[in-house]
Amino acid sequence: MKREEIFGADNVHEECGIFGIYDNGDQLDVSRLTYYGLYALQHRGQESCGIAVNNRDEEDKIQILQYKDMGLVQEVFNPLVLKELQGFAAVGHVRYTTAGASRRENAQPLVSRYQKGAFALAHNGNLVNVDKIREELQEQGAIFQTTNDSEIIAQLMAKERIRTNSTAEAMMKVMTEISGAYSIIVMTPQRMVVARDPQGFHPLCIGKIKNSWVFASETCALDSVNAEFVRDVEPGEVVVVDKDGLHSYTDLCGQKSALCVFEYIYFARPDSVIDGASVHNARLNAGKFLAKESPVEADIVIGVPDSGLDAALGYSYESGIPYGVGFIKNRYIGRTFIQPTQEEREAALRIKLNAMRETIAGKRVVMIDDSIVRGTTCGRIVKLLRDAGAKEVHVRISSPPFLNPCYFGTDIDNRDKLIACKLSLEETCSYIGADSLAYLSIEAMQNLVPECTRGCCDACFTGNYPVYVPEEANE
Amino acid sequence: MKREEIFGADNVHEECGIFGIYDNGDQLDVSRLTYYGLYALQHRGQESCGIAVNNRDEEDKIQILQYKDMGLVQEVFNPLVLKELQGFAAVGHVRYTTAGASRRENAQPLVSRYQKGAFALAHNGNLVNVDKIREELQEQGAIFQTTNDSEIIAQLMAKERIRTNSTAEAMMKVMTEISGAYSIIVMTPQRMVVARDPQGFHPLCIGKIKNSWVFASETCALDSVNAEFVRDVEPGEVVVVDKDGLHSYTDLCGQKSALCVFEYIYFARPDSVIDGASVHNARLNAGKFLAKESPVEADIVIGVPDSGLDAALGYSYESGIPYGVGFIKNRYIGRTFIQPTQEEREAALRIKLNAMRETIAGKRVVMIDDSIVRGTTCGRIVKLLRDAGAKEVHVRISSPPFLNPCYFGTDIDNRDKLIACKLSLEETCSYIGADSLAYLSIEAMQNLVPECTRGCCDACFTGNYPVYVPEEANE
Amino acid sequence: MKREEIFGADNVHEECGIFGIYDNGDQLDVSRLTYYGLYALQHRGQESCGIAVNNRDEEDKIQILQYKDMGLVQEVFNPLVLKELQGFAAVGHVRYTTAGASRRENAQPLVSRYQKGAFALAHNGNLVNVDKIREELQEQGAIFQTTNDSEIIAQLMAKERIRTNSTAEAMMKVMTEISGAYSIIVMTPQRMVVARDPQGFHPLCIGKIKNSWVFASETCALDSVNAEFVRDVEPGEVVVVDKDGLHSYTDLCGQKSALCVFEYIYFARPDSVIDGASVHNARLNAGKFLAKESPVEADIVIGVPDSGLDAALGYSYESGIPYGVGFIKNRYIGRTFIQPTQEEREAALRIKLNAMRETIAGKRVVMIDDSIVRGTTCGRIVKLLRDAGAKEVHVRISSPPFLNPCYFGTDIDNRDKLIACKLSLEETCSYIGADSLAYLSIEAMQNLVPECTRGCCDACFTGNYPVYVPEEANE
Amino acid sequence: MKREEIFGADNVHEECGIFGIYDNGDQLDVSRLTYYGLYALQHRGQESCGIAVNNRDEEDKIQILQYKDMGLVQEVFNPLVLKELQGFAAVGHVRYTTAGASRRENAQPLVSRYQKGAFALAHNGNLVNVDKIREELQEQGAIFQTTNDSEIIAQLMAKERIRTNSTAEAMMKVMTEISGAYSIIVMTPQRMVVARDPQGFHPLCIGKIKNSWVFASETCALDSVNAEFVRDVEPGEVVVVDKDGLHSYTDLCGQKSALCVFEYIYFARPDSVIDGASVHNARLNAGKFLAKESPVEADIVIGVPDSGLDAALGYSYESGIPYGVGFIKNRYIGRTFIQPTQEEREAALRIKLNAMRETIAGKRVVMIDDSIVRGTTCGRIVKLLRDAGAKEVHVRISSPPFLNPCYFGTDIDNRDKLIACKLSLEETCSYIGADSLAYLSIEAMQNLVPECTRGCCDACFTGNYPVYVPEEANE
Repeated sequence: MKREEIFGADNVHEECGIFGIYDNGDQLDVSRLTYYGLYALQHRGQESCGIAVNNRDEEDKIQILQYKDMGLVQEVFNPLVLKELQGFAAVGHVRYTTAGASRRENAQPLVSRYQKGAFALAHNGNLVNVDKIREELQEQGAIFQTTNDSEIIAQLMAKERIRTNSTAEAMMKVMTEISGAYSIIVMTPQRMVVARDPQGFHPLCIGKIKNSWVFASETCALDSVNAEFVRDVEPGEVVVVDKDGLHSYTDLCGQKSALCVFEYIYFARPDSVIDGASVHNARLNAGKFLAKESPVEADIVIGVPDSGLDAALGYSYESGIPYGVGFIKNRYIGRTFIQPTQEEREAALRIKLNAMRETIAGKRVVMIDDSIVRGTTCGRIVKLLRDAGAKEVHVRISSPPFLNPCYFGTDIDNRDKLIACKLSLEETCSYIGADSLAYLSIEAMQNLVPECTRGCCDACFTGNYPVYVPEEANE
Repeated sequence: MKREEIFGADNVHEECGIFGIYDNGDQLDVSRLTYYGLYALQHRGQESCGIAVNNRDEEDKIQILQYKDMGLVQEVFNPLVLKELQGFAAVGHVRYTTAGASRRENAQPLVSRYQKGAFALAHNGNLVNVDKIREELQEQGAIFQTTNDSEIIAQLMAKERIRTNSTAEAMMKVMTEISGAYSIIVMTPQRMVVARDPQGFHPLCIGKIKNSWVFASETCALDSVNAEFVRDVEPGEVVVVDKDGLHSYTDLCGQKSALCVFEYIYFARPDSVIDGASVHNARLNAGKFLAKESPVEADIVIGVPDSGLDAALGYSYESGIPYGVGFIKNRYIGRTFIQPTQEEREAALRIKLNAMRETIAGKRVVMIDDSIVRGTTCGRIVKLLRDAGAKEVHVRISSPPFLNPCYFGTDIDNRDKLIACKLSLEETCSYIGADSLAYLSIEAMQNLVPECTRGCCDACFTGNYPVYVPEEANE
Repeated sequence: MKREEIFGADNVHEECGIFGIYDNGDQLDVSRLTYYGLYALQHRGQESCGIAVNNRDEEDKIQILQYKDMGLVQEVFNPLVLKELQGFAAVGHVRYTTAGASRRENAQPLVSRYQKGAFALAHNGNLVNVDKIREELQEQGAIFQTTNDSEIIAQLMAKERIRTNSTAEAMMKVMTEISGAYSIIVMTPQRMVVARDPQGFHPLCIGKIKNSWVFASETCALDSVNAEFVRDVEPGEVVVVDKDGLHSYTDLCGQKSALCVFEYIYFARPDSVIDGASVHNARLNAGKFLAKESPVEADIVIGVPDSGLDAALGYSYESGIPYGVGFIKNRYIGRTFIQPTQEEREAALRIKLNAMRETIAGKRVVMIDDSIVRGTTCGRIVKLLRDAGAKEVHVRISSPPFLNPCYFGTDIDNRDKLIACKLSLEETCSYIGADSLAYLSIEAMQNLVPECTRGCCDACFTGNYPVYVPEEANE
Repeated sequence: MKREEIFGADNVHEECGIFGIYDNGDQLDVSRLTYYGLYALQHRGQESCGIAVNNRDEEDKIQILQYKDMGLVQEVFNPLVLKELQGFAAVGHVRYTTAGASRRENAQPLVSRYQKGAFALAHNGNLVNVDKIREELQEQGAIFQTTNDSEIIAQLMAKERIRTNSTAEAMMKVMTEISGAYSIIVMTPQRMVVARDPQGFHPLCIGKIKNSWVFASETCALDSVNAEFVRDVEPGEVVVVDKDGLHSYTDLCGQKSALCVFEYIYFARPDSVIDGASVHNARLNAGKFLAKESPVEADIVIGVPDSGLDAALGYSYESGIPYGVGFIKNRYIGRTFIQPTQEEREAALRIKLNAMRETIAGKRVVMIDDSIVRGTTCGRIVKLLRDAGAKEVHVRISSPPFLNPCYFGTDIDNRDKLIACKLSLEETCSYIGADSLAYLSIEAMQNLVPECTRGCCDACFTGNYPVYVPEEANE
């Protein structure tokens, strides 16, 4: 369970994880492997999930079968469903959506039939020029059954594919029309087409199992199916896999890349390696930088589980202050947990997170967390430490303050809920009840992943958007 | 439960029931009333169902909310879901589909967004020129996410509505493009548009609750919500309801009508009145005609529950042979009933239907059923009577033999499974093990509903198709 | 679904159905057959059900496995559960209980371990001296985990079985201690012991499949597993089946028998034969007697589905007034149906039962129902007929008025809710809005089943209790 | 989720957690608080759970309501169920059981009615003389519906309570009859009776919310309901709470105590404090001792999540070797996870646990785990490290080797599955593929919790059983 489930709305959400596998004669159980892969990507989306497969029927005709629903991977799939999803290729998706019974329609992959056949599409990211494209499509009479960008992309794909005989070319044509963040896997009856936007906003990697190919949002999904990591999909690259192997189309590569830096700070699993840089190392580095930039006399360094733990260890390494276990998180709190009543709201956190009195009592504590959105949750955690007897609480945040909305696939979409837009550092420190508060500097943040030679998108901190963001996206 | 659940594939299925309600200031609970209406229409489709409502949000903007899933009405909906579906108009649908996990996408109503807004569409019937239309749409780049005719109609609606300012005109334009059977309810944010194909293949009626309007496939659904019956929608008519009341567009009326005669014989609920004729009376008439056409010396007349009971009573009225209770049907066998194993197949029927020995033993029995498809089930039922001691079994079928496929919304789609296409009357009689067998004559069938001044479609019996059926529909 | 689910509390409930099977070398799938048998007995109890089997493990040791839960047979059991319940003997139970989450403990069969092994017990009926026995057992330190009489019987069985080497003797000893209504099946690791109280309050019959023995509350359950009917268990008889065959112990037989007459009138399935008399015939007779005793000029006779239909047919036979279909009952309304809101209470019935206007409008109607408890439901049904245009409504009840509580296994337990204890015939007629009202006479009721040479218990009508009922049972 | 779910049978299970609350005029929502308390104790049992409450009905009569089922706390309970469980006192239970559909009966609390009323009983532990007691009770005719020790205790309680007017005295009398491990909460209509065996095998503590009393297996459950820790229940103590407050009975106190040392090493949550000693500190100490006793030249110390992490930190503290994050555990793998197929068994662990290559590659690694049972899982984890590039793997186990079965409530019940009974240290090291292997010494183990002045039971390591264990318990 990611922190968002614990702290409710007071956090940042990413919106998707994607996984694809193309069996090239290895007799793999592609739906089961996709199921394992989605498990490893579950942290990227817990609201709905789905799998589509290329099924060869008795007459050797290929049809696309799919199954998707609201819920966690383990809630949606069972052995009977997986058994029905036989095929030689599969594409899977996990999705975070805002709540609402009526949103089942938005689950992915999206399977579409068009003039030249059918395809399944899974998409991670957010387009910024979607309103203009939708308008154009609607003028031609298009209808939309979902509110997903994926449906936009699917319609463009169909239109372009009708005009050309190559799926790769169609995909590249679509990429010149859309702008923003997108990691895409398209499965057609004969091949798998994989694309990453020219800025490479979100991760997408290639792995191999014997002669078969695997694609996933993060390398931890490759590990889960015991695939060998081959390389990342390049920003702007289109990769096509068919029975003749893997083909790369790089016409759109070479633009200034802009990987979302928050993937390193919070979104991705620490055991993933993105564009050459270890997420775990990035977080250790964040902690080390914090220790250098904002040192403090203290007795113990602790992290807020799970995403603050790595940076806390880094802070300890650099500062020499011992690392300690500050909190125990209840591992059994799931989606169906019955929330405390309104009046007990104060106590809600206590059920999910318990401060370790032995580590904290009488100590000067450095507490590391990955970010502050509204500040309410952070304030409650500080209070847990005070109640457990902490003498001092020094909060260190392993990212700079959020000052700008994100248009590329997270839900930091509104300045109104960002505490850093409303309070000064001192006011925030006082609001959360800490003895001191420091954020990671912009400069340090830009040096978290020296191994990654590509640029990062840090617009939520700096306001430097790597692509033009139309006005209407600002609503 | 209708007979199809009992007898598996050896029967005829209809594919849909639709219901709509437009609250004109009466503060009705439209989703709950739609839920009751769908209950009354459940016999028209048990595989999936759904409801969409016109919801006015806090800022008085109207959005369409929907909920649909595989399952019976009572399985899909619960009080929490209905409570979320608040609005001033609602449209609902029950659907029969062939099995398969991947078909959830086909559940209706279909909610679409297009250039001029959004609409929900529910459809009962089957188009015959759908392949040609799909081709044309695909040439323009259209994609399809379902295999429903409804999606075709929705795309046409969107295209036509863009060209004109009137939903009614758009609907009439669409009706000139499509051919076949369709009863349609379209809900837009402001109005409800209802249409019935010019042949009036399937029933569709109008009711009223105070100042509010109700539309349903059958009058039994009006009864279930205590609506007053107003009239049938005319074949070819388009009805629009908005806050100014009901408007009728009859430009396409006046063609030769062709109501599916099997609605009277089997599909519809006996307490419904269709196009002026009572279904119950039609079945009584069928029994009376059978008694006149195919009399037999016998001691008792029985019907196969539930659809053979009315005709059996009619046979008794006409012949003077006493009516008896020949079978007890287990009312608790539902969708999750665990089927007997393969080797027990012979015994399967016995769990669901038990012959009443007291009525039958030592008697000459007239057994009335509504139709014979493959003949296997009928044969098993005859055997139940023999095992219970019947001296003679005279089978009378309250419809003529099926000789032709139906293209208008039932699944009599293949001559291969029709026993009457393969065996003579005598052979069939011998196959099912009866002492005598008689079908209703074509002539009698054409006189079942004298109150109904419209013509009926009896193509499945006569081969006289009321509209041109393209070759490709024959696959 | 039985009428109680439709009409809520305004009806009479029976509390149980039992089924047992002992495979004597025929390699039967006993849990599956028990599942089918319970299906056929579902009308005797819809709240919980269970199956226990004698399982031989790998080391040839016999252990009793069980599975039981709240819900209908088809909700509780699935193929996986049945597959786990392998064995050579099985006992099953369906139960009606008053609502309440905490009552799962009361589901049967009850599996107990004691000094000499283990046994599973299923019980239908109600003891009248249970308080005294419980007191005695508690004085010796006994604890009770359920509120079932079955647990009392199980404790007595254990005590008696310790003192004797014969299960049959132990059972007979227990039978001298308990008083009231009980049909019991006890399954031990080696045998099946079946007993019926000396009055034979509730039915219990014996059937055979090849060399194997079957026991069931009603013969319709024998039919459902294609077992041959052998005979009824005699009142007071103990039957033991083991690998050497069937043994009968008749020491306690010969008392005045008192089969619950309401089994014929309402409880049992019409296709069952109880103690030599057909339930269907009994109901036909009730209708015939009513026609003789309370004739009326009328145009049509109708029955309230499902239990009034047979008597209506009998009334028609005797009076010559045509039998008609007066109501259509919605076959899809199940346990999870969402009830109409309080204010719609009036309309509740309409969703479940629709009057057939064609049969009724302008007619003088005789409406047959099986009984009147509170009168509210009957009044609503009469109103349905009036609304459908009935000119006159003459209500005929196929049983005498309820005047006394039942202590033997039904829930007619309180004079306060019996309309006949509070209103005169004329007042009741007026209360339900009928033009005339007549009940079956006591005398006619006592002649319903001439084939059954045993006496019946009609205490609920006459107050003549066949066994002494202690004061405390009257609470 | 505790490690047992990940590693299947290759681990040690504890069998229960208990929680009780008695509201003394504070208007607490006792069922909701019990639900939260059981959440905090979920690690002590994941197979079934239940809550019983003392409900005061409309006539002010007190009845015990209960709800229990197979599954996790969040699966079994929902808001509707909790709302039905209103009362002024509640007792809850989580249980680990071996699999099997038929074991639902064993869920606790056990609610019994007996001569003087009713009571609910929740029990954690295992009696060693249960066979002899059961025999005696059975001779008197007792029957048993479960295979729980709890039912034995309930029967004894009823018998003793009949003989005396004091629940406390009855409890103490029972305690002289039973031997072994038991922490018990009994809720009667008027009071709550809490007892801990004279050896104090398992933890049990007292907390307070305003004027109300709380009892729980571990202090982390007190924290979860924001109760103030008061003290532990003393070994041999009986505590009674009623409206007059808390009463302590210490007649049976003073024996040599023997708290299960494995509570500190593995069972308990690290944020709990048991008999004066912090579990987290005990684990840090284990790591420190290991570093002193079995030092090794290495680059990094890692723990196997979750229970090895604390000891790894202690090893790092003592040795000066840096602490690192060696594994990422998938937090989403729950009970319904579809296991890899047989042939993929090797890969099963990889889906649940991923080695952190960045921490490990090229390093000499010290890996800390809490114990080794069969050795297969440990071997697989070592292989994960090798595959991730570890240069050396030195395994350190934070407990001595298991050599003897436990009879007091864990499932270390069979020498056959204990690798230390079959292989020497060197052989084990080779079997698991480590470069070196060391266990904690017996002496160090006995000094883990200096704050705890009571003795510990370490029989599983030393064979010194603190109470006489009859032969028959050895099966």
